[in-house]
Amino acid sequence: MLSNLYHLSLRPGIETVESLGGLHEFAGWERPILTDSGGFQVMSLAGLRTLDDDGVSFRSHLDGSLLRFTPENVVESQRRLGVDVAMVLDECPPWPVEHAAAAESLRRTSVWARRAREAWRSGTGGLFGIVQGSVFPDLRRRAVEQVVALDFDGYAIGGVSVGEPKADRWRVVEETTPALPEERPRYLMGVGTPEDILRAVAQGVDLFDCVLPARNARHGVAFTRQGSLRLKNARFRADQLPLDPECRCPACRRVSRAFLHHMFRSREITGPVLVSQHNLRFYLDFMSDLREAIASGALARLSQAMDERTAAPTSESPSVTTASNTNS
Amino acid sequence: MLSNLYHLSLRPGIETVESLGGLHEFAGWERPILTDSGGFQVMSLAGLRTLDDDGVSFRSHLDGSLLRFTPENVVESQRRLGVDVAMVLDECPPWPVEHAAAAESLRRTSVWARRAREAWRSGTGGLFGIVQGSVFPDLRRRAVEQVVALDFDGYAIGGVSVGEPKADRWRVVEETTPALPEERPRYLMGVGTPEDILRAVAQGVDLFDCVLPARNARHGVAFTRQGSLRLKNARFRADQLPLDPECRCPACRRVSRAFLHHMFRSREITGPVLVSQHNLRFYLDFMSDLREAIASGALARLSQAMDERTAAPTSESPSVTTASNTNS
Repeated sequence: MLSNLYHLSLRPGIETVESLGGLHEFAGWERPILTDSGGFQVMSLAGLRTLDDDGVSFRSHLDGSLLRFTPENVVESQRRLGVDVAMVLDECPPWPVEHAAAAESLRRTSVWARRAREAWRSGTGGLFGIVQGSVFPDLRRRAVEQVVALDFDGYAIGGVSVGEPKADRWRVVEETTPALPEERPRYLMGVGTPEDILRAVAQGVDLFDCVLPARNARHGVAFTRQGSLRLKNARFRADQLPLDPECRCPACRRVSRAFLHHMFRSREITGPVLVSQHNLRFYLDFMSDLREAIASGALARLSQAMDERTAAPTSESPSVTTASNTNS
Repeated sequence: MLSNLYHLSLRPGIETVESLGGLHEFAGWERPILTDSGGFQVMSLAGLRTLDDDGVSFRSHLDGSLLRFTPENVVESQRRLGVDVAMVLDECPPWPVEHAAAAESLRRTSVWARRAREAWRSGTGGLFGIVQGSVFPDLRRRAVEQVVALDFDGYAIGGVSVGEPKADRWRVVEETTPALPEERPRYLMGVGTPEDILRAVAQGVDLFDCVLPARNARHGVAFTRQGSLRLKNARFRADQLPLDPECRCPACRRVSRAFLHHMFRSREITGPVLVSQHNLRFYLDFMSDLREAIASGALARLSQAMDERTAAPTSESPSVTTASNTNS
């Protein structure tokens, strides 16, 4: 599960979660938790924040109160939450950005990474570094060198899925991933669709986070092995099939596409609830398939099968399944 | 599970549900389903409906299309849905109402009841009659005589929880329930709080329906053995207790009141989902306790314990737990 330090800092507050036994206890979640440092959210605040070499000051979007993130207090807060994977504070430049501005941003991110590494007191969890550098190959190479030298427990590729063209994104992933240590987890932040995940896994990426399964579910879009379905469409009004005949989620075992269509048309929360469960089941099954394919050497065959499926006309408009780092 | 013929007639339509295998199959629900005839909803449409002795014509609040309910087509629609308990079409007078108007309304309801009974072709389910007559003892007595003479599979007390004073409601329940056949289910429509249910059970009522468990959950109000909790209140911000330490629902087994407080403050649907499950578990446990108390002769003791609890200061303002027939 991924949580977000920016949001948790504002509400309910780090101290509250800590006093309640930490994030696992608070959320009733026994499996691993990763927290994003919140750098991405803070940088998006634009007028509400001031950035300096020591950290970033910002106003809460909830009550206007003044908060400050530094490389040190961000890792300390994540330690107090008791998470399994903490992320360093970084600066994620927008796209497009000039080379000079991206270089200056990377300089600050590298200084922060060193300070975070030094401040980190390992509990049961680990600390990941983040590679920035926008779409510039020389900056990405410099970022990799600097971050790997700090010997983190894992490495993230940040600064993708921020609006850049797909070709640029894939060039960055394909150049950066192999340069990161293979024996540590490699994490592509904010990605993505099943197609994007498969392509990144083929490059060596191990870990992903994305709002898509839940956000698409809220909008009535279900992932299936035959492509995505927009459940509000009239063609599902009397469709007796489950979302995905191969799926074993509660929705697929019990109700039809017609029922889910009715739930979304009636604005019943049963729709988003069941389709969120389904989409998460779909992603978990998909990741399981990828692990099996890697073990059996069948990843290339899986890629080919997905290319054929994506090209097939049963898949609906992919526009809603475009990954991005927003939380709408 | 209670469903509503008015809502299902408008969307997705009786024909659609029938073509999908009936309401059990459509909703993935194997246990008993009762359908309200929709009379209450249609009568509430005011300007959108015209009533005559043969039935009622009304416009859909969704798309303005013209529909008509008659005693015959209402039972036939419920048969097509495949429900376990169907209700006759009745006229539920508003409160307050003059004696003459209530008498005229009851005359029509009685004519409709006879026609519904004659039109009913029993499938696997049964048909219930409804006792109306507002708050007038002579009309309620007449209603009981007429409806019992038609030999229904069960009997409902309608026309309560429509705004009348509590004293009037209880007088109606206490006068009407014993007059209905003890060997058939007696059903008090639109009630109520746990306190109201216990009081009605003591009078001989067997069956209830109410929006409270789910509606209160959506508004962040949880039922507990110690009274109801308004989870948005600041006092739950760091409350480590489960909603109800004696409850075995998923929320009570896994998360604290503080977590649920955070979900409601953050407008996460996890809040309404978990508290709906909890409130339904609470009601099911409560009904189970009542059945046990009846079997062991301990109902009076249970009533006394609840009176003491209701008087205790830990119970929060009861205003949000007032039962009514609305669906907000």
